[in-house]
Amino acid sequence: MPYIPVASHLPGITGLLEYRMDTAAPIRALTQFLLRGPNSLSEGERELIATIVSNGNECQFCTTAHAAAADVLLGNPAITNSVKNDHHQAPVSDKMKALLEIARLVRISGRAVTDTAIQAAKQAGATDLEIHDAVLIAALFCLYNRYVDGLATAMPDDPSYFNQLAERLVEHGYNRLPQGYDHLKK
Amino acid sequence: MPYIPVASHLPGITGLLEYRMDTAAPIRALTQFLLRGPNSLSEGERELIATIVSNGNECQFCTTAHAAAADVLLGNPAITNSVKNDHHQAPVSDKMKALLEIARLVRISGRAVTDTAIQAAKQAGATDLEIHDAVLIAALFCLYNRYVDGLATAMPDDPSYFNQLAERLVEHGYNRLPQGYDHLKK
Repeated sequence: MPYIPVASHLPGITGLLEYRMDTAAPIRALTQFLLRGPNSLSEGERELIATIVSNGNECQFCTTAHAAAADVLLGNPAITNSVKNDHHQAPVSDKMKALLEIARLVRISGRAVTDTAIQAAKQAGATDLEIHDAVLIAALFCLYNRYVDGLATAMPDDPSYFNQLAERLVEHGYNRLPQGYDHLKK
Repeated sequence: MPYIPVASHLPGITGLLEYRMDTAAPIRALTQFLLRGPNSLSEGERELIATIVSNGNECQFCTTAHAAAADVLLGNPAITNSVKNDHHQAPVSDKMKALLEIARLVRISGRAVTDTAIQAAKQAGATDLEIHDAVLIAALFCLYNRYVDGLATAMPDDPSYFNQLAERLVEHGYNRLPQGYDHLKK
């Protein structure tokens, strides 16, 4: 039972974004730019960063949602599963392994990020901007996970919800959908 | 030494916000609305939430900056000091003590927030919207603290920097200053 009155048909973050649209607008804009904007990291790679952080924070809604989006984008659910279990063994590039390690440390604390982890990413070919974006995406999901669980939002009744949500996130991104798309407003 | 090339005269968050203005714009907008927008919590009370979270995350730049802003707004540095040490003993309202407790829990994890803490805030008179905003402000500073420390940004050389920054945050808020205000661009 959520701690504040959000619409009961909108689980997880979705009800919060409708509850307070003044704060939702910049949150959506930041997420859309970081996860769907022009970037040398693919959309699937950026969803993996969202996934490893949400999984580390044990945020069930966000982990399921972003793993599902990554699965659609990457076409192979084995990738998110191995990122969740041990990203060092995941079938991703060495650069992504290093960026996922940075994200893992950011989740713990900004102060947990080491020069060694940064240099490993640079040596694997990560640019300054990719390191910046990995840190900021990880920090953003530390916000989301706390927002979603700190207000005790609900999980959907039907697990197939996340398949529809993933398709919406892949097809339409993180902006608020205009009127007429109400069936997609997840 | 920051991990990415930010302008050396811009310590802490300030260099990051100039490094990537596409992400800075929605971050600034969210912060301006949450900390300076219309709200039944005063600006000083909202800065106390930023302070308790930044202090818990041991983010020296953010803690110093937001405590300084709170000190200007509240007119009594004893308040931020006691909030940092033990908010239960701080000279703030019972409602604020309860909201600071929620913020303290959000900082640890979204999952750490208890129904008991929420009910205590409601019984002390906190509205749903105040609880929402306390959670989201706390979550936002979990983002900021990780962003600032995860990229190893610098502290200013001169501690009086924070007095000027506090005045800027009180007078001008969190929006990017227009040209002609370069001397205030902290």
